[in-house]
Amino acid sequence: MKKVLESSKKDLLNLGIGDVSLPLIPEACKTLQKAAFEMSERPIGYPSSHGDHSLRQTIFEKFYKNFPLSSSNIFISDGINSDLGNIQELFDQTTTFGVHEPSYPVPHDVCIMAGRSQFTTVISCDEKDRFLPKPPNHKIDVMYLCTPNNPSGTAMNYEELKAWVDWANFNKSILIVDAAYIDFIQDPSIPKSIYEIPGALSCAIELRSFSKSCGFTGLRCSFSVFPDDVKGLIAKQSQPLKAIWAKRMATKSNGIAYPIQQAALSCLSEQGWHQAMMQVNHYLKMAKALKTSCEKAGFETLGASNAPYVFIKCPQHMNSWQFFDYLLENLSIVSVPGSGFGKSAEGYIRLSGLITEEVCKKLVRDWKVSAVLSKTSQTPTFGKAP
Amino acid sequence: MKKVLESSKKDLLNLGIGDVSLPLIPEACKTLQKAAFEMSERPIGYPSSHGDHSLRQTIFEKFYKNFPLSSSNIFISDGINSDLGNIQELFDQTTTFGVHEPSYPVPHDVCIMAGRSQFTTVISCDEKDRFLPKPPNHKIDVMYLCTPNNPSGTAMNYEELKAWVDWANFNKSILIVDAAYIDFIQDPSIPKSIYEIPGALSCAIELRSFSKSCGFTGLRCSFSVFPDDVKGLIAKQSQPLKAIWAKRMATKSNGIAYPIQQAALSCLSEQGWHQAMMQVNHYLKMAKALKTSCEKAGFETLGASNAPYVFIKCPQHMNSWQFFDYLLENLSIVSVPGSGFGKSAEGYIRLSGLITEEVCKKLVRDWKVSAVLSKTSQTPTFGKAP
Repeated sequence: MKKVLESSKKDLLNLGIGDVSLPLIPEACKTLQKAAFEMSERPIGYPSSHGDHSLRQTIFEKFYKNFPLSSSNIFISDGINSDLGNIQELFDQTTTFGVHEPSYPVPHDVCIMAGRSQFTTVISCDEKDRFLPKPPNHKIDVMYLCTPNNPSGTAMNYEELKAWVDWANFNKSILIVDAAYIDFIQDPSIPKSIYEIPGALSCAIELRSFSKSCGFTGLRCSFSVFPDDVKGLIAKQSQPLKAIWAKRMATKSNGIAYPIQQAALSCLSEQGWHQAMMQVNHYLKMAKALKTSCEKAGFETLGASNAPYVFIKCPQHMNSWQFFDYLLENLSIVSVPGSGFGKSAEGYIRLSGLITEEVCKKLVRDWKVSAVLSKTSQTPTFGKAP
Repeated sequence: MKKVLESSKKDLLNLGIGDVSLPLIPEACKTLQKAAFEMSERPIGYPSSHGDHSLRQTIFEKFYKNFPLSSSNIFISDGINSDLGNIQELFDQTTTFGVHEPSYPVPHDVCIMAGRSQFTTVISCDEKDRFLPKPPNHKIDVMYLCTPNNPSGTAMNYEELKAWVDWANFNKSILIVDAAYIDFIQDPSIPKSIYEIPGALSCAIELRSFSKSCGFTGLRCSFSVFPDDVKGLIAKQSQPLKAIWAKRMATKSNGIAYPIQQAALSCLSEQGWHQAMMQVNHYLKMAKALKTSCEKAGFETLGASNAPYVFIKCPQHMNSWQFFDYLLENLSIVSVPGSGFGKSAEGYIRLSGLITEEVCKKLVRDWKVSAVLSKTSQTPTFGKAP
């Protein structure tokens, strides 16, 4: 495989890691430059640990004005990744956690790193459930949810989310909702915030990001929403998590860089958000083109409607790594093996639609995904699963 | 006091919080703008979780090339504050910690927040020791040191640091050295890195920042040095902390924004560092002018030689808050009460030299610090201590 990789390095089609392929949106670039100039003119001191008021207020007005929330419920961070891990610190060592798979692996990793393995429940999901978890019939103190889901590209609808909110309120549990791909939702039956579900304001923390919609992966900006009524058992007492989170941020962080918060703010302007949605639409178009092409070739697929990922069932009973190797060796395509997101996604691979039109065209036309299936039916030499 | 504050708000001389008063250094501004433009031209994806190689390598070459270290020992972060807290996660719950006071309060705060109160030793220092701690005669697993010290402005010399390194190696302890003000050191008897002390490479982690020397408080960039031989007891086994820290960062962080790392890199160029040292010299000049002025007025002071702070003994047996109120009401000066940095600094206040020439001149000439002492000897009406 190394030989193949080396010989064709420059022609590899990278549909692996879900990183953006378009530049930062123009409004954000302009603002970033302006802020840099401003910093040459006057001292810009420590940011607020919780985020600039103007950014928190604008986020509230743009996404949450129909809910009984305010800017004080919103906290600016350097990425959902950080928040997923740091939230762990709010809870006692015996708090039980739940994660689902396949999913973005960080929640499970941080539970293990915090020494919580024995207190962590893993809910496995399969293709019958579109790889989306259903509430268990027992209590878990804190449940991580990732929807729209990475890697499957599927998203929970109203009823599915409602089942989780009802479960959480019944059990006095907390939901931590990783909504990194929420801006990609197109289906009107899928809520654009967990807070559209009655009761969510007393159990759910929502995490959102500027990364994929605005081209911010290299800039790092996200936010979390802690409603007033979301409470946790801290030192055996029920306490509002918002206050503990605020204290954590005030002590352990000096906030997010001024130019980055300014750039994030500009993304929420009419012009900025229009540009962001153009990028979102582009990526969804790419994902759909990949999906169509795969389906024409006879593959079973999921996703690409409300998230920029296509989840493909491996043909010929290949496992994830075998199909990964096959795509790499025969079509120079870099994918992500489903098994990396949990055992239950063995036999799947993820293709990222966060690609340029050029890469997409190459893949769909020149390289002809359809060739894969016909080739695989001739019993190709598979790469070894690692 | 509120009335005084309101009436004279615009004329307040802020020598309180240690935030910068000069803009970002020109090289960093230029680079920040260039990086912002670059981000409009091409996608800049996820940064490396451990920091860009070029920045890590340049830091190694600039500060550590005479030590058996490499870029792999250096990790880029968003501020010493974050690192001081996050390092806690590397250790078992029963690890013992040590902090000293007066000192930057975050190490003590994060020990308490991690539920380690009963495992934390506080070493109190007084004016006889220039408010700098000496090693105790018992083992502490992990000891936080802050030198040059905030708030006292004093710095440990070679012998004082050596005592700590010897103590740490004898006890198999770890030193976490908050060296936020290291770039301000002028005295040649004070090491410019803990690694100048023989044996430090097996026990010390050094934390440094771009905040004060380069005007980065609003940009957030720092770095930590984890030598290969610094090991900790993790899950009852001695393990290199560097590897655990690397794993933590890779899982819980997506790194520092591209334009910020680029700006930090530009600070280390010949031109950039020259500009940084000009800012450092300016702040030290301001601190020294404050100190001289205070001493002429009969105050006992510390600091201002190797850190931008002047630590002033309150006159007339006032406590820290009484003198704070007095300075505010009579001279419109905002200071920081020493008691905020630990009980042993009760009876002191800190003035920050991170000020503009304009503020310094106002304070030294127009407002005449010397007036304080004469006024206080007339038994002024003190504000109430909170």
